[in-house]
Amino acid sequence: MFSNIGVVGAGAMGTAISQTICDNTQKVSLYARREELVDSINTTRFNKDYFPNIRLKDNIIATNDLNDLKDAEIIFLTLPSSTIREVCSQLKYIISQDCVLVNTAKGLEKGSQKRMSEVIMEETGRPACVLSGPNIAVEMVERTFSSASIACENKQYLEKVEKALSTFRFKVSASCDVIGVEYCGVIKNIIAISQGICEGMKINDNARFSVFTKTYNETKDMIEKFGGNRNTVDDYCGFGDIITASTLNVSRNHTLGVLYGQRIVIDEKASGVLFEGKNTIVIMKKLCKKHNIDCATVDFTYDVIINRINPKKAFEIFWDKL
Amino acid sequence: MFSNIGVVGAGAMGTAISQTICDNTQKVSLYARREELVDSINTTRFNKDYFPNIRLKDNIIATNDLNDLKDAEIIFLTLPSSTIREVCSQLKYIISQDCVLVNTAKGLEKGSQKRMSEVIMEETGRPACVLSGPNIAVEMVERTFSSASIACENKQYLEKVEKALSTFRFKVSASCDVIGVEYCGVIKNIIAISQGICEGMKINDNARFSVFTKTYNETKDMIEKFGGNRNTVDDYCGFGDIITASTLNVSRNHTLGVLYGQRIVIDEKASGVLFEGKNTIVIMKKLCKKHNIDCATVDFTYDVIINRINPKKAFEIFWDKL
Repeated sequence: MFSNIGVVGAGAMGTAISQTICDNTQKVSLYARREELVDSINTTRFNKDYFPNIRLKDNIIATNDLNDLKDAEIIFLTLPSSTIREVCSQLKYIISQDCVLVNTAKGLEKGSQKRMSEVIMEETGRPACVLSGPNIAVEMVERTFSSASIACENKQYLEKVEKALSTFRFKVSASCDVIGVEYCGVIKNIIAISQGICEGMKINDNARFSVFTKTYNETKDMIEKFGGNRNTVDDYCGFGDIITASTLNVSRNHTLGVLYGQRIVIDEKASGVLFEGKNTIVIMKKLCKKHNIDCATVDFTYDVIINRINPKKAFEIFWDKL
Repeated sequence: MFSNIGVVGAGAMGTAISQTICDNTQKVSLYARREELVDSINTTRFNKDYFPNIRLKDNIIATNDLNDLKDAEIIFLTLPSSTIREVCSQLKYIISQDCVLVNTAKGLEKGSQKRMSEVIMEETGRPACVLSGPNIAVEMVERTFSSASIACENKQYLEKVEKALSTFRFKVSASCDVIGVEYCGVIKNIIAISQGICEGMKINDNARFSVFTKTYNETKDMIEKFGGNRNTVDDYCGFGDIITASTLNVSRNHTLGVLYGQRIVIDEKASGVLFEGKNTIVIMKKLCKKHNIDCATVDFTYDVIINRINPKKAFEIFWDKL
């Protein structure tokens, strides 16, 4: 039993993680920037912005003071990847020497193309633990059955995080393949987009699942070239999350693909919607070039989403590479 | 270009294979037992029993005389697995010495638990080529995009079959892992049932895809123990076909799972429907015992479909093994 585990970010995932770990710790310190949300959670026990119908467990205490995390044994970072560096630059002056940082954000840093664990290492000097899996926040917050892969170079850190997360309903698969787990979380967005495009253009099912197979194998090849273990792709962070993001309608990236597959272009500014997957495509295209990787899936999504080539034409180019 | 390729069985898959290969051969000899169907195909160009709206290519010639296959360079067997032994015992007196037999039937022989290529070897003395993939007959017959894995111990045979099948729209992945390809076709039925049960009992999506991940990895473990290559499971015969059978509503096994997940028991006799997947579960349960394999997926489907344990209870047992 832990005494205090921190969660930075009271969005959907932060709240979901808090609900998942609260049986294994005396207190969850849930950090939110907005004072109004903090007060609301502490007085009503509901995070009205995200889950107005789910009563949060009593030992989840919201705070908007990062100093309340100074004795936390573990801190989960459930923020957008673009904010991880800045938050870590603040946290490093606060947290204890043994505190383990766990990142749940999926993505690479814009510009540097660095993985989040690399960013955390640079800012805090400690190896981060990373978490990735078929985790739909709205399901996790209800404490239903779920699972995740976690990875860390430091075995003691890994065991600590495994203990914090594991319950009968939440299964954890632990490994030391940080690179593999992190890239699974990145590449699955591209896969979800590519499957969405196929659905949108109403290609036949055999075709869709044939390219899905190609895509799955290319993910393994890429991760191997990036220094990860190809078998990690068969784990919850890979297979589980890829199927979730690609076959359900819960993923924004999947939706993006479906729309572009129908040749519908979204006005993101006017819609106030950000499709992070678009950035991922651009970054992955660059990374593939840098590592001399020929990836038909990245090319296909780049052709359709960025170059706005007719999906049918882009598909035939893709298909020819099978 | 081949001169004559035979297809035994003018059902959905036989007709679909005929349409797929007809560009690579001068003639397809499509064997059907019923004279009336043969006449109907040859005079109308439609297989009215299966695809009343699809005109068959002109070089597909139906016959009900197996002797018309005596000069065939390749023969595709597109029959139920239960009839393969008997047909091969007839074919061996007819076919030429170089004729390659390709099996598309998925399943193990009842009683002997032998793979179809083993049955064919016993009856004809030649190594069979096996074909398995995300192949929905109604899509193939329209000559849309599709793919399959093929495998044969004999490299020349393999190349021959690859040539017969490959077109721009039909992609073939060839290997020598006959055991892996055949077991993928068998185990995918159990996977489709297990995913169907999860859907039927309305378990949350994270749970469903977490067990799907476990199931996928267990398939690899099983195939390895049976003497196959675990990586074959990532190919069209594995990943592609597993996703097809488990996420679409085209698979009868998936439907079986959905119904039992809802605790609806079917009267197969009165319905006139045969669920081959039920036999597969029983056979796989025996095989696992024989090979000392602990497979949570096989146990789960056996518990629900054969033992008729409450799916919720069976699921918790399954989940505990993750």
